[in-house]
Amino acid sequence: MLPWKPCQIGDTVSLVQTPSLILDLDVFDRNLDRLMHCAKQMRVRPHAKSHKCPEIARRQIAKGAVGVCCQKLSEAVIFAQAGITDILLTNQVVGIGKLARLAQLAQTIQLGVLVDDQQQLADLAAAMAGQAKSMDVYIEIEVGGQRCGVDPESALELAKQIVSTPGCRFAGLHCYQGRAQHLRQANQRQTAITQAAQIARQAVDLITKAGIDVPCVTGAGTGTFWLERDSGVYTEIQPGSYVFMDRDYADNLAAADDVRFEHALFIQTTVMSASHDGFVVVDAGLKSMSVDSGMPRVDGQPNLSYLKASDEHGVIDVIEGPRPQLGDVLRLIPGHCDPTVNLYDELVVVRGDKVVDIWSIAARGASL
Amino acid sequence: MLPWKPCQIGDTVSLVQTPSLILDLDVFDRNLDRLMHCAKQMRVRPHAKSHKCPEIARRQIAKGAVGVCCQKLSEAVIFAQAGITDILLTNQVVGIGKLARLAQLAQTIQLGVLVDDQQQLADLAAAMAGQAKSMDVYIEIEVGGQRCGVDPESALELAKQIVSTPGCRFAGLHCYQGRAQHLRQANQRQTAITQAAQIARQAVDLITKAGIDVPCVTGAGTGTFWLERDSGVYTEIQPGSYVFMDRDYADNLAAADDVRFEHALFIQTTVMSASHDGFVVVDAGLKSMSVDSGMPRVDGQPNLSYLKASDEHGVIDVIEGPRPQLGDVLRLIPGHCDPTVNLYDELVVVRGDKVVDIWSIAARGASL
Repeated sequence: MLPWKPCQIGDTVSLVQTPSLILDLDVFDRNLDRLMHCAKQMRVRPHAKSHKCPEIARRQIAKGAVGVCCQKLSEAVIFAQAGITDILLTNQVVGIGKLARLAQLAQTIQLGVLVDDQQQLADLAAAMAGQAKSMDVYIEIEVGGQRCGVDPESALELAKQIVSTPGCRFAGLHCYQGRAQHLRQANQRQTAITQAAQIARQAVDLITKAGIDVPCVTGAGTGTFWLERDSGVYTEIQPGSYVFMDRDYADNLAAADDVRFEHALFIQTTVMSASHDGFVVVDAGLKSMSVDSGMPRVDGQPNLSYLKASDEHGVIDVIEGPRPQLGDVLRLIPGHCDPTVNLYDELVVVRGDKVVDIWSIAARGASL
Repeated sequence: MLPWKPCQIGDTVSLVQTPSLILDLDVFDRNLDRLMHCAKQMRVRPHAKSHKCPEIARRQIAKGAVGVCCQKLSEAVIFAQAGITDILLTNQVVGIGKLARLAQLAQTIQLGVLVDDQQQLADLAAAMAGQAKSMDVYIEIEVGGQRCGVDPESALELAKQIVSTPGCRFAGLHCYQGRAQHLRQANQRQTAITQAAQIARQAVDLITKAGIDVPCVTGAGTGTFWLERDSGVYTEIQPGSYVFMDRDYADNLAAADDVRFEHALFIQTTVMSASHDGFVVVDAGLKSMSVDSGMPRVDGQPNLSYLKASDEHGVIDVIEGPRPQLGDVLRLIPGHCDPTVNLYDELVVVRGDKVVDIWSIAARGASL
């Protein structure tokens, strides 16, 4: 935790101490509106793993989201404590201690969880024994992400098991194609989601023919959600990064019908050393941003290129034009928003050149 | 912050909820002893940016360290609040607000800071005006890291300026060659540190000939400190990662006289999905480790390879032998310890198969 605040409400943005995580509220609001407009008939359940911020969840729900997704049980507990009453935990939960907490949480909110294994379901059933309120259980389908999930035939077996399990309600299929989100070419994303939708459709048909209703098919992210929307099989979408729009998502090449968002999230950084020709050093490095998806972009200054990050330093190459001066303030667009946000305890919320609020990233570090 | 603890003191290690950051106390103790033994005549000032944990700093000082280094002002404030009384802030501090806090901190502990610019020094002097206790000011020399720092001639000018600046005491030269730490070949590291020491020597000679005493030449990291030790010019070493020993440092090829440490830091993780042949999915991804220096290694299981990380998942390839089972607990050796530790609020300290303590990573996220 920081021993002091980087700014106060009402401060001029350029005076916020650095490195700090900045949210442009006007852009953020436009991103929220754009998603709800483009979702059309879809239920929208944004993914809160991107922001880990209950205030953002409240604003998403106020705009029409049905609830949020979380990715970790501890994250879901924090959002529930903050008053969010409808959460889909888009992950498997393993271990007796966590399952007991999961069962408890299901007594206080509308809660869903994923399974992709009969043993998981048996363990979940044991944790739910004697609980008053049942758990919404979704089957994760492997739709091309090559991570978790089962094929449609295995899903049918799991669905049969769920409907005969006391304390568990079969709530639907989780069909998230994570790899498709970051495919650069629009036609690659189209192909991947077409395939994902076909697999989802197979699973729906198999389960439905066995006499089991499939209430929901949920999935989709910021990079593809309009494809799932138009697939005819998905009923709910889960985009998360759209609220911020990181550099990596923006690097996806657009098709004519792509839905684009604007960069709302920045790392404000200061030039702390300018003792060499050709480059300057800023105070934001690996502990201020995740570089797993590449380096950040310097906002609005194409003549500057963030070259390399060490733990607490960033080297910015001056491609052309004048070199920034010691003390100059720059804004970086992070390569990957989710793990970057997870480094900070607070979002500095700005409108124009003023700090208008500070929001707690209450679920930062909640990885259990 | 986590809404509950992953374990309690006395728990069996395999029952610690995951993902959690585990410190093997016996190995850690051996690493501390090995450094002090190998430092020989050198003053040792370990870098606390690696661990951000006051309890570790106290143990380093109890073993003979003169104090610690910090890399950020907010980090230094937290260590000072925790009772550490001798801190070298191995970084430039820029901005009036931070400089005022820096000047305050210097009134309460023995504090050093770096400069590599005359304007920085002028700003520091303004912040120190009227303060009772002076600040130790070190000049950062560019010794091959291609980041901050000045050449020996500019250092002489800065040294002259410091000795005539009220409130500032010229304390020495900071000559850290960060790039050398991770050069894979031992002869590459030797060459880099030989060059760094030559530049440091030039600066010392220039400043000494001008009649200014150079009380300290400080630098060196876990990858090279025995080279600086034997250079004849360095008087203090600053290794940080040796307490943990990450995968990237261990990947350095050793020369006969290299000083090696053991892995003391692990991410404990659980197999949460095992629904495919050939790989399993664990619950530790990008929010549980930094992958800037590559993927983690699965401890003690060369038949398993951590293939890719997404935000909350890791895919582990089964190269040969039986596939781990759902619920199996694995330990990962992080690729890069510093930004990995910065993701966690607590270290779970174990001895053998028991949890013996939980230490606060109090300066986690302290990047201002």
